[in-house]
Amino acid sequence: MPRVVVEVMPKPEILDPQGVAVRGALRRLGFAVTDVRQGKRFEIEVERADEETVARVHEMASTLLANLVIEDFAVRVEEPA
Amino acid sequence: MPRVVVEVMPKPEILDPQGVAVRGALRRLGFAVTDVRQGKRFEIEVERADEETVARVHEMASTLLANLVIEDFAVRVEEPA
Repeated sequence: MPRVVVEVMPKPEILDPQGVAVRGALRRLGFAVTDVRQGKRFEIEVERADEETVARVHEMASTLLANLVIEDFAVRVEEPA
Repeated sequence: MPRVVVEVMPKPEILDPQGVAVRGALRRLGFAVTDVRQGKRFEIEVERADEETVARVHEMASTLLANLVIEDFAVRVEEPA
């Protein structure tokens, strides 16, 4: 079954406390990282991955999955192998 | 600066209550979805995206970012445009 992926990330200008915490933890473990941002990833199984479905997934993302005031999202279609 | 992305998803055999809740909410909003899984997405900025760094990011993911008992992860290098 085809799968549509929605990636939701905090907008670049928004403070991301989860990302800051993860960056701190990684540094304490000895990993040199410049910056970390934490977001969400949704894998949505759909009947068909046609244009209409992708448009519907955009609607889902802007209605429910992402808060557009503080988050950006991207939609990708993943064809099954 | 190059960016390495770590995608963390619940293993297929593990119950994903967040995904189930999102699926229910999407259905109540009138979206026909078969299944939803919710995971995490980390964007990690690094100095260089060479093989050594990617190996270190695999270490980070299995040490801190993912719980390998219940989650799988994937690492992807995103070159800046």
